[in-house]
Amino acid sequence: MRPCVVVNVAMSADGKISTRERRQVKISGALDFQRVDRLKAGSDAVMVGIGTVLADDPSLTVKSEEYRVNRRHQGFDEHPVRIVVDSNARIPPAASVLHKGEGKRIVAVSGRADPRKIAALQKNATVITAGENEVDLVVLMDKLGEMGIRRVMVEGGGTLIAGLINAGLVNEIYTFIGNIIIGGKDSPTFVDGEGYIMESAFSRLTLLETQRIENGVLLHWAVQNPEEKKD
Amino acid sequence: MRPCVVVNVAMSADGKISTRERRQVKISGALDFQRVDRLKAGSDAVMVGIGTVLADDPSLTVKSEEYRVNRRHQGFDEHPVRIVVDSNARIPPAASVLHKGEGKRIVAVSGRADPRKIAALQKNATVITAGENEVDLVVLMDKLGEMGIRRVMVEGGGTLIAGLINAGLVNEIYTFIGNIIIGGKDSPTFVDGEGYIMESAFSRLTLLETQRIENGVLLHWAVQNPEEKKD
Repeated sequence: MRPCVVVNVAMSADGKISTRERRQVKISGALDFQRVDRLKAGSDAVMVGIGTVLADDPSLTVKSEEYRVNRRHQGFDEHPVRIVVDSNARIPPAASVLHKGEGKRIVAVSGRADPRKIAALQKNATVITAGENEVDLVVLMDKLGEMGIRRVMVEGGGTLIAGLINAGLVNEIYTFIGNIIIGGKDSPTFVDGEGYIMESAFSRLTLLETQRIENGVLLHWAVQNPEEKKD
Repeated sequence: MRPCVVVNVAMSADGKISTRERRQVKISGALDFQRVDRLKAGSDAVMVGIGTVLADDPSLTVKSEEYRVNRRHQGFDEHPVRIVVDSNARIPPAASVLHKGEGKRIVAVSGRADPRKIAALQKNATVITAGENEVDLVVLMDKLGEMGIRRVMVEGGGTLIAGLINAGLVNEIYTFIGNIIIGGKDSPTFVDGEGYIMESAFSRLTLLETQRIENGVLLHWAVQNPEEKKD
């Protein structure tokens, strides 16, 4: 059974997730940070695309000592399984996500990835090959489900999220909207890729909840009938 | 005195205002449409950039008979003054905004605009020249203030809004966020232009209100100290 996929992103009031140079900026505050950490601690896995690893070098660890202790008491690793979607195995061997904190790592690659790079990665991560030229996200999610991963939190970036939405794999989306304008026609948004042209292709959402947090607002959306978008 | 400038836009849950082809799509429903019409009817002027005229050919008229009657009873024209910011006087002579409905039109051009085009436009509109190579928005707003325009509603597009924010001219922003994902790294957002690189340059907002409307949510922001962004 495929995992439930929850996207979590923070964007500026004008819909940008970073500057045009793809530099991550502070969009939310301490309370929202805590919410995100709690969401992460409650997930079996946290997933990002290789672009996010290359731009931000995140560790994807649970930051709160309390949440880590709770996870241990429940018999889990301190941190959720960390998954990087990386079709060509470009992840730097020293990437934080491969080294910081205990717990499993998975790097998902395609058939195009260099076998020597895969061999090197296998020292620190489980490598899943899915798809020929790029990672087949449906196949990947099926494999993750077989491994017992039931709930995946996706933190970005826009290419991975676009691929997941397009494949009908996303169940819920949290967007925190912060009180800044970043601007820029080339500044990234949280769903990029090609985009849809026709209304019939748009993903339709249901607004579950809105919640003011500090200087911004959190929107919690459910994706309507995600499976219907599958090819 | 410069007018109060209120930006009103509708965007998808992922921050897009149209498809990558710049085709306008239905993001909000009838109730939000009515809110926008009321906001328009309560403004002295409604302003768009030339890109929006070329893409959508909007009339920028007040749609509700009731609101138009109210305006007449208060001694106003049925429709607010319609203003197009059009540095090179590219507006098509047959544009709806120049012909549909009673009321004044203003086309704001720069010193680069062709005098013959300006002369032709003067049949249907007041032409204001402000700025040498592109419309100087500060000068334009000062001139609008001198003409007695105290409240301007801006409906887009992203280039005009970016210019206004950058010049510290925007006071309030309404964003209706609809329950669709449009996606696309080249799909426009409501503040494009170059964008900001440094946190110190970001416009900071204050969230005044959030309101669920039909399947989406309306965010009402005030711009903090807009005048401090002026050069």
